[in-house]
Amino acid sequence: MIAGVIGATGYAGAELVRLLSGHPEVKGLALSSVSYEGDRIEAVYPNFSKGVSAALDKAERVIKNSGVVFSALPHGVGEDYGKLCMEKGIPFIDLSADFRFGEDEETYTAWYGKPYKHPDLRAYAVYGLPELNRRKIKDRAAGGRVIVGNPGCYPTAASLGVFPALARGLAGPGTVIVDAASGITGGGREPGRAFHYPECADAVIPYKVGSHRHTPEISRTFAAMAGGNAPGVIFTPHLAPMNRGILSTSYISLAESWQSRAASGAPRPPGGEIEEKTGKIRELYAEFYRDEPFIRLLPPGIAAASNRVRQSNFCDISVHLDQAGTTLIVLSAIDNMVKGAAGQAVQNMNVIFGFDETAGLTAIPSLF
Amino acid sequence: MIAGVIGATGYAGAELVRLLSGHPEVKGLALSSVSYEGDRIEAVYPNFSKGVSAALDKAERVIKNSGVVFSALPHGVGEDYGKLCMEKGIPFIDLSADFRFGEDEETYTAWYGKPYKHPDLRAYAVYGLPELNRRKIKDRAAGGRVIVGNPGCYPTAASLGVFPALARGLAGPGTVIVDAASGITGGGREPGRAFHYPECADAVIPYKVGSHRHTPEISRTFAAMAGGNAPGVIFTPHLAPMNRGILSTSYISLAESWQSRAASGAPRPPGGEIEEKTGKIRELYAEFYRDEPFIRLLPPGIAAASNRVRQSNFCDISVHLDQAGTTLIVLSAIDNMVKGAAGQAVQNMNVIFGFDETAGLTAIPSLF
Amino acid sequence: MIAGVIGATGYAGAELVRLLSGHPEVKGLALSSVSYEGDRIEAVYPNFSKGVSAALDKAERVIKNSGVVFSALPHGVGEDYGKLCMEKGIPFIDLSADFRFGEDEETYTAWYGKPYKHPDLRAYAVYGLPELNRRKIKDRAAGGRVIVGNPGCYPTAASLGVFPALARGLAGPGTVIVDAASGITGGGREPGRAFHYPECADAVIPYKVGSHRHTPEISRTFAAMAGGNAPGVIFTPHLAPMNRGILSTSYISLAESWQSRAASGAPRPPGGEIEEKTGKIRELYAEFYRDEPFIRLLPPGIAAASNRVRQSNFCDISVHLDQAGTTLIVLSAIDNMVKGAAGQAVQNMNVIFGFDETAGLTAIPSLF
Amino acid sequence: MIAGVIGATGYAGAELVRLLSGHPEVKGLALSSVSYEGDRIEAVYPNFSKGVSAALDKAERVIKNSGVVFSALPHGVGEDYGKLCMEKGIPFIDLSADFRFGEDEETYTAWYGKPYKHPDLRAYAVYGLPELNRRKIKDRAAGGRVIVGNPGCYPTAASLGVFPALARGLAGPGTVIVDAASGITGGGREPGRAFHYPECADAVIPYKVGSHRHTPEISRTFAAMAGGNAPGVIFTPHLAPMNRGILSTSYISLAESWQSRAASGAPRPPGGEIEEKTGKIRELYAEFYRDEPFIRLLPPGIAAASNRVRQSNFCDISVHLDQAGTTLIVLSAIDNMVKGAAGQAVQNMNVIFGFDETAGLTAIPSLF
Repeated sequence: MIAGVIGATGYAGAELVRLLSGHPEVKGLALSSVSYEGDRIEAVYPNFSKGVSAALDKAERVIKNSGVVFSALPHGVGEDYGKLCMEKGIPFIDLSADFRFGEDEETYTAWYGKPYKHPDLRAYAVYGLPELNRRKIKDRAAGGRVIVGNPGCYPTAASLGVFPALARGLAGPGTVIVDAASGITGGGREPGRAFHYPECADAVIPYKVGSHRHTPEISRTFAAMAGGNAPGVIFTPHLAPMNRGILSTSYISLAESWQSRAASGAPRPPGGEIEEKTGKIRELYAEFYRDEPFIRLLPPGIAAASNRVRQSNFCDISVHLDQAGTTLIVLSAIDNMVKGAAGQAVQNMNVIFGFDETAGLTAIPSLF
Repeated sequence: MIAGVIGATGYAGAELVRLLSGHPEVKGLALSSVSYEGDRIEAVYPNFSKGVSAALDKAERVIKNSGVVFSALPHGVGEDYGKLCMEKGIPFIDLSADFRFGEDEETYTAWYGKPYKHPDLRAYAVYGLPELNRRKIKDRAAGGRVIVGNPGCYPTAASLGVFPALARGLAGPGTVIVDAASGITGGGREPGRAFHYPECADAVIPYKVGSHRHTPEISRTFAAMAGGNAPGVIFTPHLAPMNRGILSTSYISLAESWQSRAASGAPRPPGGEIEEKTGKIRELYAEFYRDEPFIRLLPPGIAAASNRVRQSNFCDISVHLDQAGTTLIVLSAIDNMVKGAAGQAVQNMNVIFGFDETAGLTAIPSLF
Repeated sequence: MIAGVIGATGYAGAELVRLLSGHPEVKGLALSSVSYEGDRIEAVYPNFSKGVSAALDKAERVIKNSGVVFSALPHGVGEDYGKLCMEKGIPFIDLSADFRFGEDEETYTAWYGKPYKHPDLRAYAVYGLPELNRRKIKDRAAGGRVIVGNPGCYPTAASLGVFPALARGLAGPGTVIVDAASGITGGGREPGRAFHYPECADAVIPYKVGSHRHTPEISRTFAAMAGGNAPGVIFTPHLAPMNRGILSTSYISLAESWQSRAASGAPRPPGGEIEEKTGKIRELYAEFYRDEPFIRLLPPGIAAASNRVRQSNFCDISVHLDQAGTTLIVLSAIDNMVKGAAGQAVQNMNVIFGFDETAGLTAIPSLF
Repeated sequence: MIAGVIGATGYAGAELVRLLSGHPEVKGLALSSVSYEGDRIEAVYPNFSKGVSAALDKAERVIKNSGVVFSALPHGVGEDYGKLCMEKGIPFIDLSADFRFGEDEETYTAWYGKPYKHPDLRAYAVYGLPELNRRKIKDRAAGGRVIVGNPGCYPTAASLGVFPALARGLAGPGTVIVDAASGITGGGREPGRAFHYPECADAVIPYKVGSHRHTPEISRTFAAMAGGNAPGVIFTPHLAPMNRGILSTSYISLAESWQSRAASGAPRPPGGEIEEKTGKIRELYAEFYRDEPFIRLLPPGIAAASNRVRQSNFCDISVHLDQAGTTLIVLSAIDNMVKGAAGQAVQNMNVIFGFDETAGLTAIPSLF
């Protein structure tokens, strides 16, 4: 199969090119770029020399030649390509936010500032988090027309960390707080003051506190998992001086039945009530994710960290209780460019085509 | 005055040496080091050449020669020096945790694993956060004998961010969540796997989730500020790949009277209710810290970040509301080695001796 | 084939494990570790979970079970294992310096401080730089007994950059200067002050100036390539604050016939004599490395940089002339843990067994 | 005195503001900025809050109000301001390259692409490296009209490292090679792909190999120091992933009389000929820089490193010989923003006005 990538020269697009070029079912690439049309991908990214070689063409020709099309364009400019793909019956996997909100145009418009161009396309759209929607993605694909709204990086990390708590009745009625840090590649390839090395090196910098556009996306996945009982969400993103990775720390008030009785101010004795309860929660998580190829639930004593999933499609999760035993603290870590973008898009392709879900995604996390 | 530093070759000790050497009231330094006794500080730290020159002596001789003594030793080994200073009437400023808990030996022992050696010394001890205890520090000093338990780095950042909310009735009864990231100098000068460059570079790494020893210290400062109504505390520290700095993100459920009515899922319109309320909270914060020389309350639209206080004794604070208007999110940033350790110790010396509180601490934050 | 790794828990050993686990001809791994014997590799490196799973055994059992043995032990402790492998006819690929000097025990002893334990083993030893010794490695392997002295990271980068100049008569009689910077993983996994994050972050730090142990190794490869006309070598290593990568900048005085005539102080006009000569030199380099799978000679205008070969076995090379046209400046970049260590070891295995030389080494350099 | 800074919002300008605000002889600041005219410096750089407060005005008004004027504008746009200052007799210290080449307009034009606008101004110009031209700067100032061409960052580091070798006859006739690495602030405040965090983090990146504009500037200082015997210069800059700092490694072929006789391939015994000769060279260096307040010649066994001069105006120098004893290797380290730009400009002001040369520049290098 030929895989097409529209917008191949942005960071997410280029990471897709890298991953697809090692995919066992992908026999060739068709790439497009507005900025570099006529050039070659290995000239734009010399990293690719002797590894990937492909011309940068027009988007329309990419669609013409491909069996699957990925769009790594900015929000709000790729709907026409989605429409074209649907007309031809080609699966369209979109890394922008345009198809993440499905029929809920109101929320999309409120946060992204524009209406849908082709509202009818949402009939084919599915939110592409396989751990939530694997069945739906397959069903849409079986129906002959599928558009995947590939999830945002933060929502992926947060949702995977919080899902079991929502699904298994651990979470009480309170608001879930998601405090997360991202590597700088999350800001994309275009230079800007916020990503200028001297402005972000050696620093932790919060941004869009309480008002980041990933908030409604997280809300929607939480609601989808929780059913009627969807919690409120507070989301605070931070920039950390690293190239890749997201570390998400989520705080979930436990349901009444899970609350500890006698919270004390002293450190927890090993083997005490808190440790035992943490073990039970870990078991629930383990059971929930038993068959998931990319979820790694960490053993007791190991906290999820952004550098253990580097260059891989894994999501590492560790569960913890606060000192008083009333709040579940979940750490979840992904590589923002892989499971948070290009890798998840490939995973969605695998689901759509019935390939082994790990095909092209078998990289073991780099140690450093 | 001669200022003495016991344990001058650790990171906090050396930072003290650097700050004290530029202090207008300090005419000389007396330094000690167990590991480098007989050597000179500028041989251990060539950075100091042509700037600071001092022999490394025994602790006892430091005490003999000094008008004020700072101890930058690890927890649990400096009480004898505190005792000696009290016998001589020399103010003793201790950067370890040994005197932070005052009469509350039980909490100290539970978290630090040993009893007090000289419990009677706590009669002279005061928790050295001037923004909380300036009056008490002066009073103790006026009484002729004072030991300052210099605060931990995380508790300093978290407390300064949360205090006005506690003091002004903004905080509801719920637990306060403190999610914080620290630079690697927080781990001290001794090499170890967690601070080995390839293990912590390019990564965000949580540790001691829900069980860090700064939790009870934060609880105590919150309780001291809140009076009867002390909230629970959940504290999660993370290592970030930077040399200096702490960025603390605190989540405080608003009191009933401050809660917003109609929380919507849409982004907040400029000038709306949430913005107005944020403005009121900022005013309360501004009034609370009106006379504080080292607190900088940031204007609307600017989030506190660790790199704006670099190399200075400032604590930057910004206040934010979540999307729904129910939770106050406070960002507070300090340089962990200055306001979080050596700078605050110098500030405490200034309070004790009635010097201008900013003496020796006038460094403007470095831009990069 | 089962591949054995002795010393699997150091950085080079673990990187070998990562690479070998994706090698198409390697069906299993046998690992040993003195420090972690009885443990599992994925417990020591949680990065490996769901990717690599293997027990850590004794070295002797690794040798017993393997068809090829890699040793990633420190210098001076692995000769016995080499002997055992030779007795059994198992190829032994040693990442330490022990077999890099062949029969020249004197140089080894002078620089590494100890004599050979089994001098007779050197009859089987070959310096494992395939671009220099591919034929010899094959011949030794064909002879039934082969020990590969896997090259040091700096010598690999420097040699590959300088070889064509030596082989094609570009280099004059003068000394070749090799000025290089390495990522911190080059220092290995054991914590130490030099690699403690706050001591090496945000800094460039030279070390062992004019006296690093890789100097005689570089001298030997230069002599091997140059024949009778071996130049002197000056080598200066620097630590740079990055995890991976070596960037080597080599200065080679051009032979008389290549010297420019009228060196001027003005900038070089495009298309002028210097540019033309640079083009000729690039052609010589291109021809020299025509069939090398891992050498990438960069086109005009692109300088080799450490981040373009990240995570790959490539060596990027760019050639430049100084302003006056008298000195060839060659930049060469490798990933110190791949082409500079584990990847080159796998390449040597491929040469020995007649596998495709790129087998298991097809990773495209990561963009970030 | 009021100090004026034209172009105060670039990195060098802002660093000047920071240094001048702590200068004992500077009673006020007058600042200008084209981009932010009408704004305040502490709004552009919130780091400055509670430390520096000044309006951003027009350049003409800055000149009107100031007793000394610094220009931190890009190359080629500030000559008019220099002219205005000369008309008023105000010392003008220019951080661009416009006045570094004095009467040698040809070289300037060849490398910077434009002619002098006011050639007559060069009669007042002096290259502002006090260690070379202190007397000339004073003389110009005494003459009533002085323009200082403040040196480039690389030329400062390289020149200070190589000067004694040139002045004391250590250097033979060969070319001096200067291989240097700079922190990213050297690229200034404007975002661009080369300084975009993901493009330069975790990497060493050479640029403008053999053709950087600092090459002719270095040549000129070498010639000025060497008299008739000026060596050729090869200069290779690299970007290193750090905010501040330059580490320059210079290679100087020793004069015949200093060459070692019997160069061997073995490591140098302690106390041998090479060590002894290195000691003699260090003595010559020490004597040469005996009265220089900002030069620190490091003791044997310590190599100059960029992090030991951080935030200070010091230049650290260490001298080394290669293994064969034929080449002097000099390491010199500065903070590119202080001694390499703003600090040196302040030093020049001190020289002009007869202040203590260290006034405002007493910061002890930060440890981390």
